[in-house]
Amino acid sequence: MRPPLITLTTDFGTADGYVAQMKGVLRGLVPEAVIDDLAHDISAHDVWAGALFLEGAIPRYPAGSVHVVVVDPGVGTQRRPMVASWRDRLVVCPDNGLLTLLWRREGAGPIHEIGLPCAVPGVPDVLSATFHGRDLFAPVAAFLARGGRPEHLGPPLVDPVRLPFPEPLILEDGIVVGQVIHVDRFGNAVTNLDRQLFPPEAAAEAVRICLERAPEKEMEIRMVRTYGDIQPGELAALINSGDRLELATRADSAARVWNIQAGARVTLRAVMA
Amino acid sequence: MRPPLITLTTDFGTADGYVAQMKGVLRGLVPEAVIDDLAHDISAHDVWAGALFLEGAIPRYPAGSVHVVVVDPGVGTQRRPMVASWRDRLVVCPDNGLLTLLWRREGAGPIHEIGLPCAVPGVPDVLSATFHGRDLFAPVAAFLARGGRPEHLGPPLVDPVRLPFPEPLILEDGIVVGQVIHVDRFGNAVTNLDRQLFPPEAAAEAVRICLERAPEKEMEIRMVRTYGDIQPGELAALINSGDRLELATRADSAARVWNIQAGARVTLRAVMA
Amino acid sequence: MRPPLITLTTDFGTADGYVAQMKGVLRGLVPEAVIDDLAHDISAHDVWAGALFLEGAIPRYPAGSVHVVVVDPGVGTQRRPMVASWRDRLVVCPDNGLLTLLWRREGAGPIHEIGLPCAVPGVPDVLSATFHGRDLFAPVAAFLARGGRPEHLGPPLVDPVRLPFPEPLILEDGIVVGQVIHVDRFGNAVTNLDRQLFPPEAAAEAVRICLERAPEKEMEIRMVRTYGDIQPGELAALINSGDRLELATRADSAARVWNIQAGARVTLRAVMA
Repeated sequence: MRPPLITLTTDFGTADGYVAQMKGVLRGLVPEAVIDDLAHDISAHDVWAGALFLEGAIPRYPAGSVHVVVVDPGVGTQRRPMVASWRDRLVVCPDNGLLTLLWRREGAGPIHEIGLPCAVPGVPDVLSATFHGRDLFAPVAAFLARGGRPEHLGPPLVDPVRLPFPEPLILEDGIVVGQVIHVDRFGNAVTNLDRQLFPPEAAAEAVRICLERAPEKEMEIRMVRTYGDIQPGELAALINSGDRLELATRADSAARVWNIQAGARVTLRAVMA
Repeated sequence: MRPPLITLTTDFGTADGYVAQMKGVLRGLVPEAVIDDLAHDISAHDVWAGALFLEGAIPRYPAGSVHVVVVDPGVGTQRRPMVASWRDRLVVCPDNGLLTLLWRREGAGPIHEIGLPCAVPGVPDVLSATFHGRDLFAPVAAFLARGGRPEHLGPPLVDPVRLPFPEPLILEDGIVVGQVIHVDRFGNAVTNLDRQLFPPEAAAEAVRICLERAPEKEMEIRMVRTYGDIQPGELAALINSGDRLELATRADSAARVWNIQAGARVTLRAVMA
Repeated sequence: MRPPLITLTTDFGTADGYVAQMKGVLRGLVPEAVIDDLAHDISAHDVWAGALFLEGAIPRYPAGSVHVVVVDPGVGTQRRPMVASWRDRLVVCPDNGLLTLLWRREGAGPIHEIGLPCAVPGVPDVLSATFHGRDLFAPVAAFLARGGRPEHLGPPLVDPVRLPFPEPLILEDGIVVGQVIHVDRFGNAVTNLDRQLFPPEAAAEAVRICLERAPEKEMEIRMVRTYGDIQPGELAALINSGDRLELATRADSAARVWNIQAGARVTLRAVMA
């Protein structure tokens, strides 16, 4: 039989020991589990960054996996802890929008509030007010990894928090106005323009992409297939591995060189043949 | 039977490969072990930061676990390598004070010097002078994880190094003078004021907490339960998940906004009813 | 039977989720494997840093281990994906010089190009052009970890890319001119001067080491055994755990204090008795 598989994603960093304490709790409760660190350097309190992360990561993990996610600026307040089922995977996290992008792209599943923590082995009688990752989410993940059922933890949660997604604006003249929603470690600027906005047969010549630099001032961007196709000094666009339009440059940070930040406007128009 | 459980905590970072080399040695010697990375970004040479880390992490790990800790500015000198037993856990580290805070709060156990490394499988005939994590601590951890006994490694070590702990000063008029001992990733400033210094029934109104800004100048701080109770722009205090008084602000770094560093004085006094 | 052992080394960082997606793919394909993160903070696109890393790490891992290495600025271009055998270990990576230093020191083994990815379970019909770590290298590693043979993946690759190694210059008068090739996390400056350039009986007095500061201006450096032997404020040299001459200072960054960067010249001469 396959051992339980638990992943951890947090904004805790590792140096302060918060993650180490969570792992210690898990190892004590479910020693047979495989535990994967996914990331502990999600930008502090950045639920949106967590949501982008999970949209890509959760679907790649196999059915049966249990994912603990702690980006939790509202810890100890009225925000609800929850377990969300998603295609036979389970996500344990605060109800603050972390699954917004996963649900938007792939659909949601049943969600349960964690309302009866005392019934879960390893939950202390008095939770700390500031560290539910250790005192609540880790024990709940252990409970689920051992076959415990989400519906035994609390009532259905039917109105989960969803973050607003900045949908691209489709104008009447066929122009699509998108924006940068994330800058990654390499300085690549990811936009909200999904692959399906492009005609399936779209070749590099079939679309015109522009970065708006200032009102009424545009910078045209060439479409390429991969990073190595970009010329030195050029800002180019490609469909990235997450199926979104991304702006990149060659062996450097596009965001730094062209001063591109989240929110920067990127327009897309089909070229008349 | 539960597989051996080994954890790694270092100040090596990961990019230079020191940790990778340690893991490779462990995988070769004890392939059946579970190995957990706890942190590799302990501040370089910062034994005090390591001690704070271990105080929280070691007790959360289950009995039987073996913990390798390498924050070791004295590597290759006369400082003694050691194995410390602590409530059925074992810690392999240099004798430089790393367990000071664990021992202070939770009591110490037997300690043995590592004096016979050649008897341990995997220890090279000639140790490198600069990397005992790979050449000594990792093989010793593998030896212990497989059931080897600390007393076979060397004589008892009865006078381990302890770092001085800055105890709070309790003045005659009931004022307690503490200080900041750590700033975490979020900019929260942890003090040396333990939960037990507060009357058990202490409500927010029962204590008065002040941060000393300059001689004769104090800033009063409101006591709250959790981060979400802090008002925007406010510096507040709470009892953190490590049972210490901590200064925090809302969704920002208290240390940065109020320029709080380790050593900053924080006073506590009971309020007359 | 020992479970398969796979390691991951990348320049992806963890916060963007690229590594998480690779791990998810691996967990789905080869759930019985042990997966070790070695490093994900190799300097972005820095194949040379990756090569130095692997030279130290791969030999420490046991025979049978499979190593995925993704420092891949040429992803999606004509650069070839490959599997290199090295003393019963397998390395899955792009053919861009990542194994240069391992091969230089320890010799090479057979290499196969990855030419038939569709035959490997888990490889999508259409590879993303920008993320072969997830779509190609991870599935290939799973295939190999389960006993698949490199020669089934593609034809031998006989002319792998090798980075030029800056060999030390040995002058007629017995002077050896080396250079700094890496600065580590602690600010230690590693040179290309290998241990074997030193006479076996070399004591500290038998060699004279100098850092060239400016044309015609040298700074003599004392040879010590380990970091703790360095005097406060002193720049010293030692043979490090990778058997190379390294410049270091006490409890500080030698690179910062003496402004030493990769390429800085370091000379070595035997002292006449």
